Amino acid sequence: MADKDCIFCKIAAGQIPCNKIYEDENVLAFLDIGPLSDGHTLIIPKQHYTRMHECPPQVVACIGSVLPKVAGAVFNVLAPDGYNVLCNNGRASGQLVEHLHFHIIPRKAGDGIFTQWPAHKYPQGRVEKLAADIRAKL
Amino acid sequence: MADKDCIFCKIAAGQIPCNKIYEDENVLAFLDIGPLSDGHTLIIPKQHYTRMHECPPQVVACIGSVLPKVAGAVFNVLAPDGYNVLCNNGRASGQLVEHLHFHIIPRKAGDGIFTQWPAHKYPQGRVEKLAADIRAKL
Repeated sequence: MADKDCIFCKIAAGQIPCNKIYEDENVLAFLDIGPLSDGHTLIIPKQHYTRMHECPPQVVACIGSVLPKVAGAVFNVLAPDGYNVLCNNGRASGQLVEHLHFHIIPRKAGDGIFTQWPAHKYPQGRVEKLAADIRAKL
Repeated sequence: MADKDCIFCKIAAGQIPCNKIYEDENVLAFLDIGPLSDGHTLIIPKQHYTRMHECPPQVVACIGSVLPKVAGAVFNVLAPDGYNVLCNNGRASGQLVEHLHFHIIPRKAGDGIFTQWPAHKYPQGRVEKLAADIRAKL
């Protein structure tokens, strides 16, 4: 299930070193070497999947079961004002490595990271139709 | 386990309506009424937790096991160029409702959402020390 050209597969296989935080049979967590903030951590499935919606549910469940523990350790050490847990899917969303990964990004108030939140309102009737359309695809 | 002043607890209890996408015993997904983009979806645990690191592992695992399915349905309907899966923890990170929630945010290339990624480099020796400090807190 590894991709021979994938840097995260090589890290998961121990072929490229990392600053490891946590490892079990399915999941690996390590520090991002190009961090947005001190303690910026990545959590990946050891198996190669590209996007969230292509991932088996149990793989993301394994990551989910590890997230609180790793986030707690990062929180304990960095004492941030907050943190983002972020999984980008597709280049347009900011995904640079084509192997599913969650970022844990410690934040300080006013640090200028992800400051935009350009919310809008739906035109009348649009949100109800969208919800029905999405439910029909589950 | 509900917080009487929490809007997401009220939505989970059916006391406030939502545009529901998915529901099971533990998890609810619905459309954000102040979306960053069409199809912007929220996934919450029905129980009230504020931050990821305060959440029992099995609660986040339940959300993880639902994320691929819901992300896939959103992807199918909106056909975005990509999407972010994002959980903000603490006001400094952008969390506005104090009940743990994951956003699924459909993205188009050049849409101007989360365009910043101000990565830096660690000074020599810092990343190894941080990794050791965080591992010690697991």
